[in-house]
Amino acid sequence: MRYAIGVDLGGTHIKAALVRDDGHAVKTARTDTPAAAGPQAVLDSIAQVIEQVAQGAPDGEPLAGIGVGCPGSVSLDRTTVRSPPNLPGWKDVVLPDSLRLRFSEALRQRLARDAPILAENDANVAALGSAFWGTGQPYDSFIMVTLGTGVGGAIIHHNRLFRGATGAAGEIGHMSIDYEGPYARSGVAGALEAYLGHRFLTRHARYQLLTRPTCLHQTAGTDLEHLDLISLHRAAMAGDGAAIEIFQWAGHKLGVALGGIVNLLDIRTFVIGGGVSQAGDVLLDPIRASIGRFVLPALRDGITVLREESGNAVAVQGAARLVFEHAEDAAGA
Amino acid sequence: MRYAIGVDLGGTHIKAALVRDDGHAVKTARTDTPAAAGPQAVLDSIAQVIEQVAQGAPDGEPLAGIGVGCPGSVSLDRTTVRSPPNLPGWKDVVLPDSLRLRFSEALRQRLARDAPILAENDANVAALGSAFWGTGQPYDSFIMVTLGTGVGGAIIHHNRLFRGATGAAGEIGHMSIDYEGPYARSGVAGALEAYLGHRFLTRHARYQLLTRPTCLHQTAGTDLEHLDLISLHRAAMAGDGAAIEIFQWAGHKLGVALGGIVNLLDIRTFVIGGGVSQAGDVLLDPIRASIGRFVLPALRDGITVLREESGNAVAVQGAARLVFEHAEDAAGA
Repeated sequence: MRYAIGVDLGGTHIKAALVRDDGHAVKTARTDTPAAAGPQAVLDSIAQVIEQVAQGAPDGEPLAGIGVGCPGSVSLDRTTVRSPPNLPGWKDVVLPDSLRLRFSEALRQRLARDAPILAENDANVAALGSAFWGTGQPYDSFIMVTLGTGVGGAIIHHNRLFRGATGAAGEIGHMSIDYEGPYARSGVAGALEAYLGHRFLTRHARYQLLTRPTCLHQTAGTDLEHLDLISLHRAAMAGDGAAIEIFQWAGHKLGVALGGIVNLLDIRTFVIGGGVSQAGDVLLDPIRASIGRFVLPALRDGITVLREESGNAVAVQGAARLVFEHAEDAAGA
Repeated sequence: MRYAIGVDLGGTHIKAALVRDDGHAVKTARTDTPAAAGPQAVLDSIAQVIEQVAQGAPDGEPLAGIGVGCPGSVSLDRTTVRSPPNLPGWKDVVLPDSLRLRFSEALRQRLARDAPILAENDANVAALGSAFWGTGQPYDSFIMVTLGTGVGGAIIHHNRLFRGATGAAGEIGHMSIDYEGPYARSGVAGALEAYLGHRFLTRHARYQLLTRPTCLHQTAGTDLEHLDLISLHRAAMAGDGAAIEIFQWAGHKLGVALGGIVNLLDIRTFVIGGGVSQAGDVLLDPIRASIGRFVLPALRDGITVLREESGNAVAVQGAARLVFEHAEDAAGA
């Protein structure tokens, strides 16, 4: 049995787990992300949660390495995190060096010789976790979509991450579904994120529901100023027609992009994760209804849209999986 | 030196070449496609051009096999051609069996033991030819776009075809760039083919130019009823502003889809082939101007859009390459 540490660095929380090579999380820890305090404070916090979970390993058992899922783009060699969104003040941070100098002597001794510290985009680690220990397990190839603050994505092809020329593949949220559509913060017109990103979706819901009869007027304030996606989902689950329509609108938009991906890649399985995916079939059914209409008829069979049933656990698992995969590749090379 | 036969089966012509494993076409042949006469007549014609080019091989030299690029979808095992567009009456045709029974005794003896007969989608073989002997040679990974009657595409990743779950990957022409856009024949709203397919583009040009001052009114009839893309291109090259605008319009649309592909795959090189690509920079410059606007800023560096300078020659070369690759894979396995 080998052990690795997986870390999920988010804009609000840092989560870590000591993970066995069968995917079992032996010990977990989490802390708030001191994002506003800048990179040094965040790196301190990452090192702290790593120290905590490292203590869960059986005595004398070395740690195979550390994987860290990060927002934004990561260099192809998995060392450098580049200007992650929601983490002000970060430019290029070389993660292995920045973390190692913060580790205790005990942890340094615990790490196996040449134990790697690997960074990877957060949607990519979620996909890897899903492929090995989550909803993606039965599928050789699938697309992961993470619906959270932004819209992320990743491609698993033959059980490996498809990374592209610089490791940046999978940026589904920036694909345009309407070349004259609304602008996302990336400056791309009609980018998926301009419909399904947290803020965009909340704002759309607020404006659309202002003049509609919906139970949300009772709970979210007269101008719906307190509307959030959790209350929207709750209303939809309670049968609120207007709230349901919002999810239909969002699912339709996502289906357009996913249909295009089926045409391009002939990969027909989608695993939807991230906070917004907790809406479940209220969101997934409209996606399913929409995709087929944007796919060449010959490719419409067998399209499958699933929610990541392991939730965010796949992120730390996938981050640890980076380490095991690195070791397997080195042994095979 | 090994020899294989490559065939390019089109709706109007069948082309074949005897190709050496360095890509050199030793002998070529072509004939009209008797499409209206149905599959049996077309298969007869394919067998005939194969017989012709086979005679170009040096005495005693066995043929490594035959590759055939076909319109539409081909089974994952590369045996069966399924309802190709522009070839009425075809349903599922098992190409190796259908061709072998038409071969002369001399050709059968010429074919090496276990020499394969392999079918593959036409855009895929063009991409393979481009990757090994065309404009794609310097690039490890690139996207091929074929602009002809329809809009085809293929993905070369690490010098191999990316084929997807059933071998159908690369159907760029059916990706939507506007979920409320015009319908292509596939029933997909805003599909790229509904803008850039031969008939759609010609019709758009006709309507757009009807009320515009353009030299095409002199050559294409009062109602522009004889307008075609060749005269349109000629007018654009002569500096006709209205004709140039048509290509700008088309290039912009293609750029939207290609930008989305950069976001998804982090592959930034595009090779544009097919008849319409002969328009060259009149079309390519607007594509280049458009792509960047539909890509996440971090991925905008190094985007390259090239015309396939070998023209259609890459199709028969790529079809022959299927055979050499098959042999290499078998030797490596």
